This record gives sequence, structure tokens and C-alpha cells, in this order.
Amino acid sequence: MKGKFITFEGSECCGKSTQSKLLYEYLKAKGYKVIFLREPGGTKVSEKIRQILLDTENKSLTSETELLLYLASRAQTVREVIKPALLDGQIVVCDRFLDSTIVYQGYGLGMDIKLIKRLGNFVTAGVKPDLTILLDLPLEEALKGISREKDRIENRSLEYHRKVKNGYLKLAKQEPKRIKIIKLADDKNETQSKVRCLVDNLLVGRLACRQVGR
Amino acid sequence: MKGKFITFEGSECCGKSTQSKLLYEYLKAKGYKVIFLREPGGTKVSEKIRQILLDTENKSLTSETELLLYLASRAQTVREVIKPALLDGQIVVCDRFLDSTIVYQGYGLGMDIKLIKRLGNFVTAGVKPDLTILLDLPLEEALKGISREKDRIENRSLEYHRKVKNGYLKLAKQEPKRIKIIKLADDKNETQSKVRCLVDNLLVGRLACRQVGR
Repeated sequence: MKGKFITFEGSECCGKSTQSKLLYEYLKAKGYKVIFLREPGGTKVSEKIRQILLDTENKSLTSETELLLYLASRAQTVREVIKPALLDGQIVVCDRFLDSTIVYQGYGLGMDIKLIKRLGNFVTAGVKPDLTILLDLPLEEALKGISREKDRIENRSLEYHRKVKNGYLKLAKQEPKRIKIIKLADDKNETQSKVRCLVDNLLVGRLACRQVGR
Repeated sequence: MKGKFITFEGSECCGKSTQSKLLYEYLKAKGYKVIFLREPGGTKVSEKIRQILLDTENKSLTSETELLLYLASRAQTVREVIKPALLDGQIVVCDRFLDSTIVYQGYGLGMDIKLIKRLGNFVTAGVKPDLTILLDLPLEEALKGISREKDRIENRSLEYHRKVKNGYLKLAKQEPKRIKIIKLADDKNETQSKVRCLVDNLLVGRLACRQVGR
């Protein structure tokens, strides 16, 4: 792949959308060809799947259905948008990717993580993030931050969200080169400067950041 | 499972819906507790997935997305409707099931059949048809029979539908005890009497039909 693939991960309301959008604007201003998307979504079909997944009316949705719908959406986004852009040398910034599925459906819902990883390989067609930024902040603070009506996933128990958070930390330990943890600062610009530091480092190969993280 | 699970399979417009509905009415009239459903569908969530799958506007839908959406729909229908009914001793009559996925996405689209079977085990949670009725008629005749506007799958080439048909015949050879081929007669009642014969045999264990099929 000629391009670079950067993903954002983290629990609900951890600032992913804000930080990933700010990064997108930054890269665009620097003259890079860059695409921004959120998962599940990013294509017409994936947005339709997203509606099913997040609709609070779909209370009966089973864990297996949930897992397969997330994967179906991703299979579409990878082939229709992400892979072509990376082959074209563009930068793709994505709010959530396969790590979310491993953590939310695997660690969170207790589904077989090996199976999820195997299915993940099938749907991602060899596309793997070059850099994953894991935004971290205390869980209670994150969930408190949701002022609008919660979606189907956000509505789950604190215990569920704790498993998700711990799952992320486990993944980061397994892949420290790819997954970088950034503790959310009170000031979004302070957080963003840490994000940009990691991304600049990836793009120009300079060791711009001595130490980022917790 | 205390109940019995009967599925109908076959190419487009082979008479599955008509024959499966007639069987449903027959069993209901005989006093059985029986459920009828079509796949993909049968639950609120699965019907939403069905809309995405059959919408001719979704031209960009990749094979992988298509496969995962069919499986997602099935995972929901099995857990929400089919398994509870079978555990309760009911008869479930279903228009299409896993064989359709093996044949349409495996043999038809050329996807890995071993993978589809492995995923099939995951989504069906151990539920397997006791009897599968494969309705067979010449392909050209079947496709000619679609008078309304064709959906996304029906729109595929004759070559594709030929692979589907041959795929079904291969499956029937692999599992002759479960999959019974019935050649469609001109008169739907003649076909239905063959269907009923097989089903009566399954339900009462009598060897009512000496020879059914081709």
C-alpha cells in the first residue's frame, strides 16, 4: 500500500470524533490527499447497516447478528473506499476499525476472540492500520459526557464498558508498535498536538515525539 | 430438538414460495403447530437486512458484504424464531436456509465453500433441517417466469444461475438423506402431493412414498 491508514479507537465519548476530524483538517491543510470516515459507515450500504446496529428499537438483535453486521459494513467500506484510497497513495483517517469489534463484541460481549480475528482477516482483505490512536479517559467521565439520547451500544451497562476499556488496554499491550495510547487532556488542542506528533512521525519518519502517552 | 425443520430450496422462480405456503396450510389444517418463514427475513431485523440485500440500487455491494448480510439475517432468525419453535416441538417451514448461501455465494459467486460452511455452523447454532425439498425445473423456464421487476440477485447472468443450479445438485448428491429433489410438475397440486408425501413420511415415520423425485 502506498498510502497510510490511521485509525482512532476508544470507549464511548472519549473524543474520537473530535480528534479524528481535527487530524483530518490538519492533514488536508498540509496538502495531503486524505479521506475521513467513521465506522460502521462510510458507504451508502454501510450507513444502512449502521442504522440497524445503533437503533435502540432493535432490542432483540443477537450478539451473532451484531458481530456479522459490523463485519458486513467493514467488508464494504474496505473494498469500496479504504483499499482503493490506500492503493492510490492517500491517507485514510478512520473513526473505529477492527479493534472495536475485537473489543466490543469479543471482550465486551464475551464472543470468541480467535473467531473474530479470523473473520476480521476475511473482511479486511489484508488492510491493517499503520497507526492506531487509542484515546483514554476515565470511564465514568466518558459515559457522563453523553448528553444526547444514547444509542443501542452506549446504553449498555457500566460493567460492559469496563470490559471494553480493559480489552483496549490488552490490545495495546499486544501491539505496542501500532497502538499508541493518548490520555485525553482537558484541552482538546493539547490532545490534538499529541495526535499530530504521532502522525507526523509516521508520515515523515522523523522521531518527533520522544514520549507520547500515559 | 422436539420439533421438525423443513426447508425449501431451488433456483429463482422454481415455485418455492407457492409450494412452501401450500405445505404450511396443509400442516396447519392437520392440527400441527407450525411456523412459516422466508429467508432472508422472518424477524424485524432480518427484514431490514433483506431490503439491503435485494435492493437493485445497491450495485456496489461486494460479495463479502453480501455473504455476511445473509449470515447476519440467519443468525437473528435462528435465535429469535426457529430454535425456540423447534425446542417447543413445533414444525418450522422455511423458504431457503443455509444451502442457499452455499449455493448462491459459494458455487455462484465462487467464494470459499469451506469458509461458508464454517460460518454457517456459527450462525445456525446447531440447527439443521430434518428435510430439505429441492424444487427443480429447467433454468430458462424458471427465469422466464419472473414477470415482475427482478431483484438484485435475480438480475444476475444466466451463467450465474446455472452455477447455482449445479451447486444445488451437488449438495443433493452429498446429502441424499436430507435433500430430496422434486421435479416441478405443470400442475402445482401434483407437485404439492409429492411434497406432502415426503413430509408425512418425516412426521409419522411411515414409508408412504416409495419413490419421489426425478
